Amino acid sequence: MADKDETDQMTTGSPARAALIALDWGTSSLRAYRLDATGQTLDTRHLPWGIMRLPQPLQDGAASTALSGFDLAFEQACGDWLRAEPSLPVIACGMVGSAQGWKEAAYLDVPVDLERIGTLLTKVERGDATPLHIVPGLIQRHGLPNVMRGEETQVFGVMFDQNRADSHPADNVLIGLPGTHSKWVNARRGRVTHFDTFMTGEVYAALRGHTILGRTMSEAPAADMAAFERGVKVAGAPAGRAGVLSTIFSTRALGLTGELAPGSQADYLSGLLIGHEVAALADMLRQQGELPRIVLCGDPALCQRYILAMKHYGLGSPEQAQNATERGLWHLALCAGLVTAASPSSASV
Amino acid sequence: MADKDETDQMTTGSPARAALIALDWGTSSLRAYRLDATGQTLDTRHLPWGIMRLPQPLQDGAASTALSGFDLAFEQACGDWLRAEPSLPVIACGMVGSAQGWKEAAYLDVPVDLERIGTLLTKVERGDATPLHIVPGLIQRHGLPNVMRGEETQVFGVMFDQNRADSHPADNVLIGLPGTHSKWVNARRGRVTHFDTFMTGEVYAALRGHTILGRTMSEAPAADMAAFERGVKVAGAPAGRAGVLSTIFSTRALGLTGELAPGSQADYLSGLLIGHEVAALADMLRQQGELPRIVLCGDPALCQRYILAMKHYGLGSPEQAQNATERGLWHLALCAGLVTAASPSSASV
Repeated sequence: MADKDETDQMTTGSPARAALIALDWGTSSLRAYRLDATGQTLDTRHLPWGIMRLPQPLQDGAASTALSGFDLAFEQACGDWLRAEPSLPVIACGMVGSAQGWKEAAYLDVPVDLERIGTLLTKVERGDATPLHIVPGLIQRHGLPNVMRGEETQVFGVMFDQNRADSHPADNVLIGLPGTHSKWVNARRGRVTHFDTFMTGEVYAALRGHTILGRTMSEAPAADMAAFERGVKVAGAPAGRAGVLSTIFSTRALGLTGELAPGSQADYLSGLLIGHEVAALADMLRQQGELPRIVLCGDPALCQRYILAMKHYGLGSPEQAQNATERGLWHLALCAGLVTAASPSSASV
Repeated sequence: MADKDETDQMTTGSPARAALIALDWGTSSLRAYRLDATGQTLDTRHLPWGIMRLPQPLQDGAASTALSGFDLAFEQACGDWLRAEPSLPVIACGMVGSAQGWKEAAYLDVPVDLERIGTLLTKVERGDATPLHIVPGLIQRHGLPNVMRGEETQVFGVMFDQNRADSHPADNVLIGLPGTHSKWVNARRGRVTHFDTFMTGEVYAALRGHTILGRTMSEAPAADMAAFERGVKVAGAPAGRAGVLSTIFSTRALGLTGELAPGSQADYLSGLLIGHEVAALADMLRQQGELPRIVLCGDPALCQRYILAMKHYGLGSPEQAQNATERGLWHLALCAGLVTAASPSSASV
């Protein structure tokens, strides 16, 4: 009953009605969005409760209905939003749907129509409370198998944005999602046809933190983009033909010969790795013959590095997508029938 | 004086006279060899005193001539051998000659005649005691710079062995030294002309220990060579064209799809990395047009993995060299005039 009173108070005090709660719940963090009936973001929260670092459940011997770490994180992310508007649907994407997550959501086989993703959500029941709907991941079984969880939602958001900019669905788009594990996703007419994964970000961290390459590096006050570009170019130069397992050693050797300062070595290594990734991508695209429209989606500073590398390897200047995750979650909720579209003019009622 | 008595006793008890003490002193361990006047090994010792993990000097306030960690390790390696035969010369190769070593030894520029290496040893004075002579490393300044320390001595040992097997110096040899940092060294007529470094071993350890790939691996009772060969083949298959930053993710994805058991994932990853290294090497050799004679030198189990990969990538069956380090140190000592060659028949006098 106390909850009900509190809910009413908060509803009264709330400046705008919401239509959906959307969660981007990954391995190391949790982002929560409160979206209105046109899909516009009303509130955002960023919490450290990734699925591998959840809050600890209270050790209360008297409690017969102990809450899990997932419940506790969920409560912090959006408990008050739900008390204010208990009928709001909730959708989530990311590793929360993995085997280590709250409940395992399916992988859908690629090629797959993006809209189909929204019709196959996995429901997490929460007793009498609002259930959570988890977006499935994608799996590619031809060639070497490949998987994604969370990026499918960003792809959905990018594609929808593309579709608004154009008058028709983009015919051939390559969506780049740089990060710990970079994904490059081919989509044609609303259908994901293929994707590749590069472990570039995680390999960079492992090389820097746990090999001899990190020993001669020092922190620099600012990024050395000249050193980054120098690394990028090596990947496609004759000196790079031995591949990344070989070129990375030049980070150390250039230091020993006095040609690369300790404060520049991390950016040079970053350039080498991103350079090898983008050079391989450019080769594969050229083999396919047709250069697709390319859209990048991710951390702006990291995207900037990829843009420099893509320019060097003849891939032009990609577009950059903003807010793809929350837009993707919104449109997946539309596909799933969790929300219904309202025209922008009626949204603020 | 007590030392002198002890020396005499030990000399009396020694079964054979030595001509050289040779040390292979790297980052993580120290091997000491006592060699006779024909270069044959009389004794070997393996100590954990690499230059990055030396014994701790005693904290003795009264001692005005405190011994360093290098002195202490040296004493354990060969102090008794030198007391028995105080006039024995001592030669060392490896990271003991690095900036973090006992004394920094020069890098010689490649191309370089191997015999020249022996004439440019760096002398570490030890007061009235026998000095130590450190072998220089090699540096390659054309293209991306590259360095080695210790492997030049193995190359010397391999080349000398080759020269004995043939009636003339091998005309074109590629010497592979697999390990933490694999080196591939081109030598022609006693001259090192070029070398490449691949950080394969260290990258494997970093990926296994410090990325998500290690999380799904489990220890296996024995090596899974079928998984290793599967990884080797991926590097050269169409699925491998995205490069090693991409293919390594299949270690996890094949696990998620139930196609690769946890106990097989480490060997599969090993195969991927060695496969990418050998595939790149094979491409470079084909571009050069002439396939050299190939000799491998290193840990036998690791060499066996490289032999499998080389067979798959059309590089035939390389020879394997044994005892290259001690043979190389012996012949470098000969070049330096530290020892003089004796015929085998007069060795055991």
